[in-house]
Amino acid sequence: MADQLIIFDTTLRDGEQSPGASMTKDEKLRIARQLERLKVDVIEAGFAASSNGDFEAVQAIAAAIKDSTICSLSRANDRDISRAAEALKGAARARIHTFIATSPLHMEKKLRMTPEQVLEQAKQSVRFARNLCADIEFSPEDGYRSDVDFLCRVLETVIREGATTINVPDTVGYAIPELYGNFIKTLRERIPNSDKAVWSVHCHNDLGMAVANSLAGVKLGGARQVECTINGLGERAGNCSLEEVVMAVKTRKDYFGLEVAIDTSHIVAASRMVSQTTGFVVQPNKAVVGANAFAHASGIHQDGVLKARDTYEIMRAEDVGWSANKIVLGKLSGRNAFKQRLQELGVVLDSESEINAAFAKFKELADRKSEIFDEDILALVSDEAVTSEQEAYRLVSLRQHSETGERPHAEVVFTAEGREIRGEADGNGPVDASLKAIESQVKSGAEMVLYSVNAISGSTESQGEVTVRLQNSGRVVNGVGADPDIVVASAKAYLSALNKLHSKVERVAAQGGGNV
Amino acid sequence: MADQLIIFDTTLRDGEQSPGASMTKDEKLRIARQLERLKVDVIEAGFAASSNGDFEAVQAIAAAIKDSTICSLSRANDRDISRAAEALKGAARARIHTFIATSPLHMEKKLRMTPEQVLEQAKQSVRFARNLCADIEFSPEDGYRSDVDFLCRVLETVIREGATTINVPDTVGYAIPELYGNFIKTLRERIPNSDKAVWSVHCHNDLGMAVANSLAGVKLGGARQVECTINGLGERAGNCSLEEVVMAVKTRKDYFGLEVAIDTSHIVAASRMVSQTTGFVVQPNKAVVGANAFAHASGIHQDGVLKARDTYEIMRAEDVGWSANKIVLGKLSGRNAFKQRLQELGVVLDSESEINAAFAKFKELADRKSEIFDEDILALVSDEAVTSEQEAYRLVSLRQHSETGERPHAEVVFTAEGREIRGEADGNGPVDASLKAIESQVKSGAEMVLYSVNAISGSTESQGEVTVRLQNSGRVVNGVGADPDIVVASAKAYLSALNKLHSKVERVAAQGGGNV
Repeated sequence: MADQLIIFDTTLRDGEQSPGASMTKDEKLRIARQLERLKVDVIEAGFAASSNGDFEAVQAIAAAIKDSTICSLSRANDRDISRAAEALKGAARARIHTFIATSPLHMEKKLRMTPEQVLEQAKQSVRFARNLCADIEFSPEDGYRSDVDFLCRVLETVIREGATTINVPDTVGYAIPELYGNFIKTLRERIPNSDKAVWSVHCHNDLGMAVANSLAGVKLGGARQVECTINGLGERAGNCSLEEVVMAVKTRKDYFGLEVAIDTSHIVAASRMVSQTTGFVVQPNKAVVGANAFAHASGIHQDGVLKARDTYEIMRAEDVGWSANKIVLGKLSGRNAFKQRLQELGVVLDSESEINAAFAKFKELADRKSEIFDEDILALVSDEAVTSEQEAYRLVSLRQHSETGERPHAEVVFTAEGREIRGEADGNGPVDASLKAIESQVKSGAEMVLYSVNAISGSTESQGEVTVRLQNSGRVVNGVGADPDIVVASAKAYLSALNKLHSKVERVAAQGGGNV
Repeated sequence: MADQLIIFDTTLRDGEQSPGASMTKDEKLRIARQLERLKVDVIEAGFAASSNGDFEAVQAIAAAIKDSTICSLSRANDRDISRAAEALKGAARARIHTFIATSPLHMEKKLRMTPEQVLEQAKQSVRFARNLCADIEFSPEDGYRSDVDFLCRVLETVIREGATTINVPDTVGYAIPELYGNFIKTLRERIPNSDKAVWSVHCHNDLGMAVANSLAGVKLGGARQVECTINGLGERAGNCSLEEVVMAVKTRKDYFGLEVAIDTSHIVAASRMVSQTTGFVVQPNKAVVGANAFAHASGIHQDGVLKARDTYEIMRAEDVGWSANKIVLGKLSGRNAFKQRLQELGVVLDSESEINAAFAKFKELADRKSEIFDEDILALVSDEAVTSEQEAYRLVSLRQHSETGERPHAEVVFTAEGREIRGEADGNGPVDASLKAIESQVKSGAEMVLYSVNAISGSTESQGEVTVRLQNSGRVVNGVGADPDIVVASAKAYLSALNKLHSKVERVAAQGGGNV
């Protein structure tokens, strides 16, 4: 049997914990379907006990996904574990991932527990979880900064209680490849029953070494699971990036000698979907999925590269799905062609009326734009108006004008809970005026902490995709809107962010949460 | 004496080679000054023989910078080396960096030379260079994929001829930390005169491991120079990123035991300057310099993090210059305060008339925006109209209107070589209409391959900074424009890109160029 490296994706859990990256249930479901197409082995779908929204998302993903194992995070207590098990009931294959901090700093400052109390709670929790689910993962939070003797006792105990995967997080991104690899090796050598579990690595990127650390854990330490996220999404500098770790193992098979199940041709589509959903841009010089990552994929034709591609390229852009970006549909495309393309893109709309709504938007777009790319279609369906979720606010019409020497002015009409409202305002520019016109009526008091625009397929003829990040009373949300008119896209994004602020989600505070 | 790690920054050479990242002489000079403030040991200022523009940039930087060694790249031939030496004449400390490919693939496909020919050329070139300059760096291009026996012969020879630094590039980003570190170690052990040179690492990030590979070359291999760029700018997935490698060595001093001269408090300002100049955005989850890299720097206040910061943070945001972003100036600030702030930001304007032009722009901005941040000031002076360089095109006025159900329309007045021109057009949105209005008169035929907007300090009240990337006859240029009105900023960016296309720069073809 080939030696297999398990790819555990936590975009929907650790990725989503990144401030501003929170996603709706429908968005998470859409990404989960793309992860299934990628052939990810394990999808960590959320942290069921953290909020009702997260519970429902885990439940919906467990029901929809058949090929990947679905996992929920849970703290090491019976209530959390029961909630996780309940959310996972419908899954074809379920995993409960429970964790507790084991580093002196975290035990003392965060948990206010003694090491013996932590050991006992880890033991009881895994025992409890094992009765609800056969597949149990245990993580010692801040494991890499823990005392190795104590950590060995904890891990030996939880393996004896039935933990099937042991994950060693570098929670704060402090590791160095050589040290982290040897740390995993030491644990596996010293723990007598270490062969009863699969060992897993979970690295953060604060010093830019998450991928190298993870791979040292695999090569040097003997781990056989890597926890990672699409685009390296995650708190602070993010997590180990799935696309980099997978392409490293594939490109350097001579060194690693491992198989991964991932269908790499879906990587670029997954990257775009996550970027468009969260509003987190991917920089051009990002490995594998950045616009410049492959010289000839950035629209630039350099003779030298084309003549002898292997002189400068160690991977082929096609292998990660770059060539998939073709002009696929136009004004004359029918409903069936549209529906089929949606399926090929992994987008599942739940009802005929949703498909009709999306198709209507598509026709409207095709009237204004002759070439419709896959990104346009994904943007179209990302637009929340297509989905079944309730919206408080919705754009009706917008009118704006600016002229050098005069103050830009905008009038915006939108619905609020079905009622039509009209606002107008001046601003520093037409976008600013439009958002002020909305805010003059909504009075959310939210502070804008980020505003960015990306043209979806290069030129300003294409749709502009706007991300607006709002902060209010400690909550941070991203709203995304797409339209060929950037001012309109901005108004949509602002309303979408207001919708997210409006749907109050109660979450456990971050410090009690899943900082694995 | 403390063991010192030399930081060699190649943002202005290898970074600038990234398609779309080309910079004007004034832009390069501004960045070089910031690199000097950062206390970078060696600044690779360009590739003097590649174009007159690059020659002049190297010359200007050599004249302006006193604290850092200034380096020019050159192929391994007398003409290139002479040009480099000539450009470096005014430098307080100069280095010539010469290279030739040594991997079988590159020697055969790119150079069409036998190994013996390559060896001879390397030898002659270093001998020639050594007579012009005492500080000589030699790089075997694609060194990591070279035959080790042959590479040892080449490197022993060039050290004998007087090369003082030996740099081993992983040109295609194929390395793994353990393998790359051992590769450097092997070379140093096998080459009898290896102790006569400083060893240097130069890693690309195609598999996301440039930083870890570089540091393995240092720790395992004994290298004492790291070649890197701000934001990891560079072709494809970019180079090893300066901010990550420096913070790793500082944060893990327990492991590396090395000193670096870098004043880290200028890192964030350097990152912004490079990002604003090139139009290459930095993703929020980028280590050290991303907006989310530090939890509390992203404008989010999580109790847990604030209470026990070291539970989740291994570096302090202040140490890399995040806290430097203060409201510094407003409407009532005078010319002296403005001039002083420019100096503090490392911006040197060459004449009083330039300072006056910048101050006039500042006052104009302050009329529209109450809080002026450092980023606003940097954007203002990045705007080419302030600099002394000649411009073909310049915006005079813009007027646009859009309304739901109607086609957006714009009228733009601009100067072309001093003559006033008026264009008008419809478009998919007001930005599209404005750019079409310009293009209707200029008829550049350029294709737009990228369009993006970032609000400089978060909200839409602040200036929007637009990047437009145009491609024409194989050349790619980025134009950047800033204005509180995004439509105006877009028109400025488009004109700035046209200006860059207009100033024809002849460059050696990429495959004959500096792909070290």
